[in-house]
Amino acid sequence: MPTFPFSAIVAQDEMRQALLIAAVDPSIGGVLVFGDRGTGKSTAIRALAALLPPMRAVVGCPYNCDPDSPAESCPHCASLPGARRKSENKLVPVVDLPLGATEDRVVGTLDLERALGAGVKAFEPGLLARANRGFLYIDEVNLLEDHLVDLLLDVAASGVNTVEREGLSLRHPARFVLVGSGNPEEGELRPQLLDRFGLACEVATPQDIATRIAVVRARDAYERDPEGFCAARAVDEAAIRKKILLARERLPHLAVPDSALERAAQLCLALGTDGLRGELTLMRTARALAALDGAESVTDDHIRRVAPAALRHRLRRNPLDESGSTARVERALAEVFS
Amino acid sequence: MPTFPFSAIVAQDEMRQALLIAAVDPSIGGVLVFGDRGTGKSTAIRALAALLPPMRAVVGCPYNCDPDSPAESCPHCASLPGARRKSENKLVPVVDLPLGATEDRVVGTLDLERALGAGVKAFEPGLLARANRGFLYIDEVNLLEDHLVDLLLDVAASGVNTVEREGLSLRHPARFVLVGSGNPEEGELRPQLLDRFGLACEVATPQDIATRIAVVRARDAYERDPEGFCAARAVDEAAIRKKILLARERLPHLAVPDSALERAAQLCLALGTDGLRGELTLMRTARALAALDGAESVTDDHIRRVAPAALRHRLRRNPLDESGSTARVERALAEVFS
Amino acid sequence: MPTFPFSAIVAQDEMRQALLIAAVDPSIGGVLVFGDRGTGKSTAIRALAALLPPMRAVVGCPYNCDPDSPAESCPHCASLPGARRKSENKLVPVVDLPLGATEDRVVGTLDLERALGAGVKAFEPGLLARANRGFLYIDEVNLLEDHLVDLLLDVAASGVNTVEREGLSLRHPARFVLVGSGNPEEGELRPQLLDRFGLACEVATPQDIATRIAVVRARDAYERDPEGFCAARAVDEAAIRKKILLARERLPHLAVPDSALERAAQLCLALGTDGLRGELTLMRTARALAALDGAESVTDDHIRRVAPAALRHRLRRNPLDESGSTARVERALAEVFS
Amino acid sequence: MPTFPFSAIVAQDEMRQALLIAAVDPSIGGVLVFGDRGTGKSTAIRALAALLPPMRAVVGCPYNCDPDSPAESCPHCASLPGARRKSENKLVPVVDLPLGATEDRVVGTLDLERALGAGVKAFEPGLLARANRGFLYIDEVNLLEDHLVDLLLDVAASGVNTVEREGLSLRHPARFVLVGSGNPEEGELRPQLLDRFGLACEVATPQDIATRIAVVRARDAYERDPEGFCAARAVDEAAIRKKILLARERLPHLAVPDSALERAAQLCLALGTDGLRGELTLMRTARALAALDGAESVTDDHIRRVAPAALRHRLRRNPLDESGSTARVERALAEVFS
Amino acid sequence: MPTFPFSAIVAQDEMRQALLIAAVDPSIGGVLVFGDRGTGKSTAIRALAALLPPMRAVVGCPYNCDPDSPAESCPHCASLPGARRKSENKLVPVVDLPLGATEDRVVGTLDLERALGAGVKAFEPGLLARANRGFLYIDEVNLLEDHLVDLLLDVAASGVNTVEREGLSLRHPARFVLVGSGNPEEGELRPQLLDRFGLACEVATPQDIATRIAVVRARDAYERDPEGFCAARAVDEAAIRKKILLARERLPHLAVPDSALERAAQLCLALGTDGLRGELTLMRTARALAALDGAESVTDDHIRRVAPAALRHRLRRNPLDESGSTARVERALAEVFS
Amino acid sequence: MPTFPFSAIVAQDEMRQALLIAAVDPSIGGVLVFGDRGTGKSTAIRALAALLPPMRAVVGCPYNCDPDSPAESCPHCASLPGARRKSENKLVPVVDLPLGATEDRVVGTLDLERALGAGVKAFEPGLLARANRGFLYIDEVNLLEDHLVDLLLDVAASGVNTVEREGLSLRHPARFVLVGSGNPEEGELRPQLLDRFGLACEVATPQDIATRIAVVRARDAYERDPEGFCAARAVDEAAIRKKILLARERLPHLAVPDSALERAAQLCLALGTDGLRGELTLMRTARALAALDGAESVTDDHIRRVAPAALRHRLRRNPLDESGSTARVERALAEVFS
Repeated sequence: MPTFPFSAIVAQDEMRQALLIAAVDPSIGGVLVFGDRGTGKSTAIRALAALLPPMRAVVGCPYNCDPDSPAESCPHCASLPGARRKSENKLVPVVDLPLGATEDRVVGTLDLERALGAGVKAFEPGLLARANRGFLYIDEVNLLEDHLVDLLLDVAASGVNTVEREGLSLRHPARFVLVGSGNPEEGELRPQLLDRFGLACEVATPQDIATRIAVVRARDAYERDPEGFCAARAVDEAAIRKKILLARERLPHLAVPDSALERAAQLCLALGTDGLRGELTLMRTARALAALDGAESVTDDHIRRVAPAALRHRLRRNPLDESGSTARVERALAEVFS
Repeated sequence: MPTFPFSAIVAQDEMRQALLIAAVDPSIGGVLVFGDRGTGKSTAIRALAALLPPMRAVVGCPYNCDPDSPAESCPHCASLPGARRKSENKLVPVVDLPLGATEDRVVGTLDLERALGAGVKAFEPGLLARANRGFLYIDEVNLLEDHLVDLLLDVAASGVNTVEREGLSLRHPARFVLVGSGNPEEGELRPQLLDRFGLACEVATPQDIATRIAVVRARDAYERDPEGFCAARAVDEAAIRKKILLARERLPHLAVPDSALERAAQLCLALGTDGLRGELTLMRTARALAALDGAESVTDDHIRRVAPAALRHRLRRNPLDESGSTARVERALAEVFS
Repeated sequence: MPTFPFSAIVAQDEMRQALLIAAVDPSIGGVLVFGDRGTGKSTAIRALAALLPPMRAVVGCPYNCDPDSPAESCPHCASLPGARRKSENKLVPVVDLPLGATEDRVVGTLDLERALGAGVKAFEPGLLARANRGFLYIDEVNLLEDHLVDLLLDVAASGVNTVEREGLSLRHPARFVLVGSGNPEEGELRPQLLDRFGLACEVATPQDIATRIAVVRARDAYERDPEGFCAARAVDEAAIRKKILLARERLPHLAVPDSALERAAQLCLALGTDGLRGELTLMRTARALAALDGAESVTDDHIRRVAPAALRHRLRRNPLDESGSTARVERALAEVFS
Repeated sequence: MPTFPFSAIVAQDEMRQALLIAAVDPSIGGVLVFGDRGTGKSTAIRALAALLPPMRAVVGCPYNCDPDSPAESCPHCASLPGARRKSENKLVPVVDLPLGATEDRVVGTLDLERALGAGVKAFEPGLLARANRGFLYIDEVNLLEDHLVDLLLDVAASGVNTVEREGLSLRHPARFVLVGSGNPEEGELRPQLLDRFGLACEVATPQDIATRIAVVRARDAYERDPEGFCAARAVDEAAIRKKILLARERLPHLAVPDSALERAAQLCLALGTDGLRGELTLMRTARALAALDGAESVTDDHIRRVAPAALRHRLRRNPLDESGSTARVERALAEVFS
Repeated sequence: MPTFPFSAIVAQDEMRQALLIAAVDPSIGGVLVFGDRGTGKSTAIRALAALLPPMRAVVGCPYNCDPDSPAESCPHCASLPGARRKSENKLVPVVDLPLGATEDRVVGTLDLERALGAGVKAFEPGLLARANRGFLYIDEVNLLEDHLVDLLLDVAASGVNTVEREGLSLRHPARFVLVGSGNPEEGELRPQLLDRFGLACEVATPQDIATRIAVVRARDAYERDPEGFCAARAVDEAAIRKKILLARERLPHLAVPDSALERAAQLCLALGTDGLRGELTLMRTARALAALDGAESVTDDHIRRVAPAALRHRLRRNPLDESGSTARVERALAEVFS
Repeated sequence: MPTFPFSAIVAQDEMRQALLIAAVDPSIGGVLVFGDRGTGKSTAIRALAALLPPMRAVVGCPYNCDPDSPAESCPHCASLPGARRKSENKLVPVVDLPLGATEDRVVGTLDLERALGAGVKAFEPGLLARANRGFLYIDEVNLLEDHLVDLLLDVAASGVNTVEREGLSLRHPARFVLVGSGNPEEGELRPQLLDRFGLACEVATPQDIATRIAVVRARDAYERDPEGFCAARAVDEAAIRKKILLARERLPHLAVPDSALERAAQLCLALGTDGLRGELTLMRTARALAALDGAESVTDDHIRRVAPAALRHRLRRNPLDESGSTARVERALAEVFS
C-alpha cells in the first residue's frame, strides 16, 4: 500500500514547515512535536520520507552508506575494496523507536551468535544504524529514560554513533532527522534535554468543521483507493521533492547577514534563554527556510517565521508570567521587530 | 465440549453489537469492554469465534496464513514453492494474553534451542502469531504495562508484527480483533492509549430477575448437556454467521455520504474530542453496522447507534460536568440530531 | 506416621462442609478459608485427602492420569500405546504452594538439563502437575502476587494447565481442589479475584473450654499413639468416604428446580452482587450439598445452608452498612425466605 | 579454643531454661530471644551444643544421619547397602544463618558443577542440611524476609526439608532447634510468624554491679586461660549433660493429667490467644520441664513456670491495656491459679 | 574536521583559567563547572586537548604509556622487552563518560571472549585506561551515582586505577584531568564529594549583545570553513601551548612562601571550611597560576585570583547567610586582604 | 613514593591513640572514626601500617600466612608439606573496601575460570583474604549495607572468614584491624552495629592557625621531597614501632585488678549502656593502653583515658539529655571518679 502523500496533509502548517527544514539541514538537531493525539504526526513523517528520492546505498551495508562517502567512515565499507562497493536504490528509512526499547537495541550490541559460534567480536547494528540517512521517530519521547534521550541527541547532533563496550570499539555513521512527539500533560522533558532539540512545534486538532471534514475525507479517500489517491497527487509531491533538493543545494552558499545575527541575539536576550544554542539554532533554521524559499540571503522575515519553533522550548519558567511560551515568543518578536 | 453459542447469550446488546462490528471490520482497532465482573465477556468472544466458519490455512504455517494471501508477506510461506503450500481447515483462534506475560512471549523471540544447537537465528513465534486471523483477549487490560498495550495497539492497527531485536529482523501478519476488558475502579488506561482503541462498551449485571434466571438457566442447561444445547441453537448460529459473511462482502462497496461525515464532525466538535480518530472510527463503525444491516448507505441512524461505543472513551475529563461519559455522548447526540 | 483423621476434627463445621462439597464437585472453583491462625486448616485438608480412596494412576505419568481417561489429553500418556499404560494405586496428593514460589515452579518449565544435554525441549512439570486429581493448598493466599492467584484460579476453573512459553506449547490435566487460607487483617485479595473463588469460610478459635480441651486432647492422643488413634476412628472415616463417593455418583442426576434458581436470584439481587457468578455457584454448591445429603432434588434448605459460604466474598463494600458480610448474607436470607 | 561452658553463664535464667527445654524436645518449634544486645545469646547456644555428647553419624552423610535411623529417610544413606553405613563421632552442629542468606543457600540447590560436568542433577545441601540434629541460630530474625522465616518454621516443625525445584525432588532430615534473636525496637515479626515459634524469652542487661562484674570476670578468666577455665567447670557441665539425657529418656513416658490441660485452656482463654497453638505448646513445654525436673507427671507448677515463655508472643495487641505482654501473662496466671 | 580553537573561545574567563591550571598540574583533582547549558563547556575541553602537542606513546599500549615512563608501572609494557617498546605520536585523548555508564565500562573488566575462548583471564581496559594522559569529561556529573563519582575522584587523585575483581588483580596508570559539569538546579553532589574536586567554576550566558554576537559569529565562521578558521588562529594557539609547556617546567621549582600559606589558612578559617583540603588546593592552584604567569614565587595576588575557584564548593550551608558562595568567598577575601 | 610518616601527623590525638591500641590488640573489634572530611583519616592508617615491621609470610599464600602459625588453619598452607612453606618479607597490607563492593568481592567467591575450565571448585580469595594481618579501611562506612557491615564485624571479631556457598565450604584466617570512617550527618549506623565496633573516635578540623599551617607545611614538604621528608623522621618512626612491639609482648601478662573492673561497671551503669560489651571493651582497651605505657597493671587513669572512645557509641538516645555523647561520657567519668 503506498504511503499517504505529504501534499495531501491538511493544516498543521508549523509541523510541516519544521519537517521540511529538518529535511534540508539535518544538523539542526531534531524536531519536537507537542500536542493533541491523533493529529497525524506519524503520518507526516512517513509521508515526507516517502516523498524523498530513493537514495543510492552500498549493497549489504547495514548503515546504508552512500557509495560516494569515504569508505573509511563505516566499519562495513572500510573492509571492502572499492571495486566491491556495489550500490542499489533504497527507500529513505523511517525507524520507530518503541517505548521500552533498551540501550542495546538502540545503539547496537555484541552479536552473541557469532561471539559464541565463531569466537569473533562482531557488532550487531541497532536502530541507530538503520536510521542512518533517514528519520528516527520517537512517540511519547517524554516517557523515555533521560539517558536514552541524551544519547539520541548526542548522535543526532554529531551524525556518528560511537560504541565502546563489551570490548567493542567502533563508530558508524548515524545521520538522521530525530523527531520526537509527546503530550506535555503526561510528563515533561528536563530543560537540559529540551534545549538540545533543534525545533519544537505545537499541533492541535482543527476546530472548524470544514477542515475536519477535509481531513476525514482525505483519509477515507486514501483508504478506499490508495493507488488512485496517490496518483492524483503525484505532481504536487514532485514539486515538494524538487523544492527540498534545490534547497539542499543552495544551503552551503547562503549568506547570513550581520543584521540577522543581531536580531537573533536581541530576541534571545529579550526572552532570557540560557546559553547560546537558541541563537545558533535560530540562525541555522532561518537559513534553511531561506533556502526552501529560494531567497538570496536570510532576512528578518525568515527569523520571524521560525522563531517560535526555534525558541519556545528554551524559555525558563517565569512565575510572574503565566502566558504560554508561544505567546511569550510572539510578544518578544513584536518588541524586537517593532 | 462445544463452545457456548453466541445466539444463546442473554442481554449485553452493546457488547454483542461491538463484537459483530469488529468481526466485520477488524481494522477498527480493538474493543474495550468495561464493567462488572462475571458478565460473560470472555464467553461472548469465544462464542463469536466458534460461530465463524473454519478458515483455510497453510499447513504448518505458524501464522495460519490464508493460502490465497501473497506468500511473500509471511516468513514461513515465503520460503515455500507454491506447490508446497497445502492448506487445511482450522478453527478461528482465540488467544488469551495472561497478566504478567512478557514482551518476548507476546511478540515472539529468538528460538534459543536452534540458536544454541544448530547455530541458526530462528524465530520462535509468540502470542501475536497465534492470534492472526482471530481474536486476542486481554482480561484486565488496565493492569497491563503501558508499553505492552502500546505495542498491541500498534500491531492491531497495522495487522503486522515487526520484530527487530536480538539480531532478528522480520515481519509477519498479525491481523486480529483485539478485545480488552477491565474494571475502571481498579486502575485506568492513559488517555493516550484509550484513544487508540476503536470501540468501548459498558456491561452491567442485569437487574431484573427474569433476565438473571434466563442467564443462569441457559448456563445450567448448557453445562448439563452441551451437545444438545448447541444443537438446538444451530439454526440461529448459522443465521448470524451468514449475516457477518454478507456484511464482509458488502463493506468495500458501501458509500459514506457527505452528510454522515458532517454529522460525525459536529458530534466530535460538540464533545471536544482530541484529534480526529473519533471521527474516523465513527465513520468506519457506522459503515460496518450498515453492512450488517444490509443497508445501501450509511445513515444518521447508524451514526447514532454506534456513537456511544465510538466516542465515550475519547472525552476529556470536564471538572464542571460530573455526568458520566455515556450521558455526555447521549446529550451531544440529542443536540446534533435535534 | 498416619494422617490425623478427618472424623476426629472438632468444631469448624462450615469449613468441613465446604471441603466435602469441593471434594464432591471440584468444578466449584476453590475454597477460601479466612480467620484465626492455629485453627487446623492445613490439618483438615490433609485429613480429607487421606480419607479418600487411593486413585488408580498410570505408572510413570507425572500428572497421575486416570487409566480410564482419554490418553490424548495428557502429553505423557498420549505417546504411550494403550498396552503400555499400566496403572497403580496412588494416594490423593496434597500439594503446598509455598510463599515465594515462582511462576515457573507452579506452572512447570523447560527441563534445562535435557535442553542442554540432549538438545530436546522437554517439559519439567510443576506444582500444578503434581496437584492433579488432588488438593492444592495455599497458606496466606492474600500475600501471593495477583497474577499467580489469577493463574491458579484459571487452572482450577478449567482443569487444564496451558503452557505456552520458551518454545514449549502443551496442555496437561490439572483438576484439583484449590484451598487458600488467609488472615484478612494482613492484606486483602482484590474483589476481582475474590469473586473467582467458589466458596469462602470463616474459622475462629472455639471459645468454650470443653471444645478447646477436646481439641488439645485429640491432638495429644494422636501424637502419643498415632496408629491406635487412627485405628479407633477407622469406621467413622469409612462412613465419610462412602458419603462422598455416593454423592459423586448422584451429582450428575440431581435436578435443580426453577424455584431454587429463583431463590438464588432473589438473594443475589438483595445483596447486590456484581455479575452472575454468585448465582451459578450458589446453585452448584446447593446441588453438591443435596448430593451429600442423599436428597432427590435441591431445596430451599440447601440454598440456605450454603448461601453464606457461596456469597459472603462477593458483596460490595457498603459504607452505610457497617455489619460484616456474614451478617449481611444472613439478613438477606431472612428477608428472602421470610 | 574450647567453647565457653554453659554452666559458667551468669544470670539469664529464662533463656537458659528455654534452651534446655528445646534440647529435650526439639519438636517444640524454636525459641525466640528478644532483648538487649551483648547479653550472650549466641554464647549460650554454642555453650549448650558443646555440652551435649558427640553424636554417632554415618561417615560421609551430609545430613549427619544417625546410623540407627532408617536409611530410607535420607537421600544419601538410602543408596548405601547397610554394611557400608559406617559411623563416627561428630560434634553437635551450631549453624549460623547470616543476614542476607538466600533461599538457595538455606534450602540447598542444584549442584551446578555436576550438572554441567557430568550432566547429573545432584543436590548441593544447604544450611538446613548442616543443622540437622543440632542448632540453627538466626541473629536479628526480625530483619529476615517473611517467606524465609516461614520456610524455617515449616522445617523446624516437621523435621524434614522438602526440596522441589529445578527438577530436583527430594526430602532430607532436618531436625534442629531453631533459635532466633532480635531487638523488637528494630522491626517486628508478623503475628502469623510469631505464633509459630514455640517459646519466646526476654533477656536484659543485669542491673546490679555484682552480677555485671561476675559476667566480665568470667569472660576475662575464660579468655586468659580457656583450657583451665573449662577444666574447672567440667563436673558442672557433666551434671547438666546428664540431666538433659535423662529428661530425653523420660519424656515419652510422662503423663499429662487432665487438670493440667484444663489449666492451660483457662490461661489461654483468659489471655484471648488466637487458635490453639498456645495450649499445645504450653502442654509440651511443661512436659519437657517436668522431664528435666525428674517429676512423675506435669503439675500446675510446671505450667506456671513455662507459661510466660510459651504465651507472651501470642497475645493480641490490646489498645486498652498498655502493660507489656509478660505482665499480662503474669496477671492471667495469678487469676487462674488464685 | 579540525577542533574549534581554544583561543577563539569568547568570555568564560574563569573556566578557561581553571582548565589551564589543571593542564599544568593535573594532581589538583578535577574541575567542576556549574551553570547554564549551552555555554561551551564541552567545546572548551576539546579545544584545550587539541591545542596540546601530541604525546609520544608506546605502540599498542592501551594506556598510551609514555615510552620514557618506567615500563613496570603498566601491565602492558611490563611484559615487553625494552627493545619492543616502539613509540608513536598520539593526540591527547578526551574521553566522555556517558550518563548511565556502568562501573565495568569505566574501570575495565574481564575480557569475556578471551576468558571463554583461550581460558585466559585477560583485562579489557575501560574508559579510565583511554583517558590516561588526557581528559575525562562528565556532563551532568550531579546525576551520576555516588560510588562512581567516588571512584573517579580516587583515580584522578592517585593517577592509578586499581582493579581487584573477578579474579583480576592489576593496576594501570590513569592520570587525567577530570572535568565534571552540572546544573545545580537539577540535583546536587554530596558535600563529601564536592570537597574532593579541586576547583569549581561558574559559567553563565553572556548578557551583552556584542559578546553574544561574537560567540555566534565565531561558531558560524568555524562551521562554514573549519580549516580556514583554524589556520587564522594558529599563532594564538601556539602561544597558549608554549605558555602551558613552560609552566609545567617551572612548576617543580616554584617556591611557596610562608606568608602565602598563612593567607590561605586565614581565608579558610574565615570561611569555616571543613578539613584542610581547601588550604592544600589553594596553595597548589596558586602555584600553578604563578607558573603560568612566569612568576618567581606565589604572591597574594595569585591566592586572590584562584580563591573563588578553590573554595566556593567547600562552604557549609549557613542558614543565616543567604548570599551565594562566590559572594561569601569574595567577602572573606576582602576581609583577609584588607 | 614512600608513605607519609605516622610521626609527622599533626593533632588528632584520640584517633592516633585508638589506632595504636588496635595495632596492639586487634581483637578489640574495629575503630570507627567520625567527623569532618579532609582530616587525614586514610593517611593515618596507611602511615601506621607502613611503620610496622614487614611480616614474614608464606610464599604464594593468598592469606599471607605467618610461617609459624599452624598450617592446618589455612586452606592454602594445609596442603603444603612443611618443607615447602618457604617464607618472605611482606609489607603490612592496607585494604580499601570501596563503596559499592559486593559481598562476593569482600568474602571471596568461586573461581569461575577454574570451575569452567578444569571443572574444579576453587576459591577465589576476596578483600578479607588480602587484609589478613593488616588493616581493612572503609570510608563512609555509614553508607554501606547493613548485612555487609555485619559480616565485616563478624570476621573482625573472630579473625576467621567462613565461606559456605556455591558448594564451597572453607575457612581462612582474616585477622585485621577494621577501621571505618563516616560523617554522621550523612546517615547513621544502626545501634546494633555501632555497639559491635570496639572504639569510636571523633576528629575535627584544627581551629588554630598555627596547627593548620603546620599540617599544610608538613604535607607540602612531604610532597616536594618525599624521600628527604621521611628520612628526617626515621628515628621517630622507629620509636613508635618499638613501642608497639613491646606493648604486644607485654599484653598477655598484664593484670587487670578488680578495682578497674568495678570502675568499668560503675561507668557503664551510670551511662545505661545495653549489654556488657561496653565493659569488656573498656577493660581490653585500658589494658592495651597500659601495655603501650609500659605500665605494670591497669589503673584508673587508663580507664579514664580510653572511656570516651570505648563507650560514646553505646549510649541510648536520651530525649531529655541533649548533650552530645562525649559530654555524657565525661560527666559520668567525673561522677564515678569523683
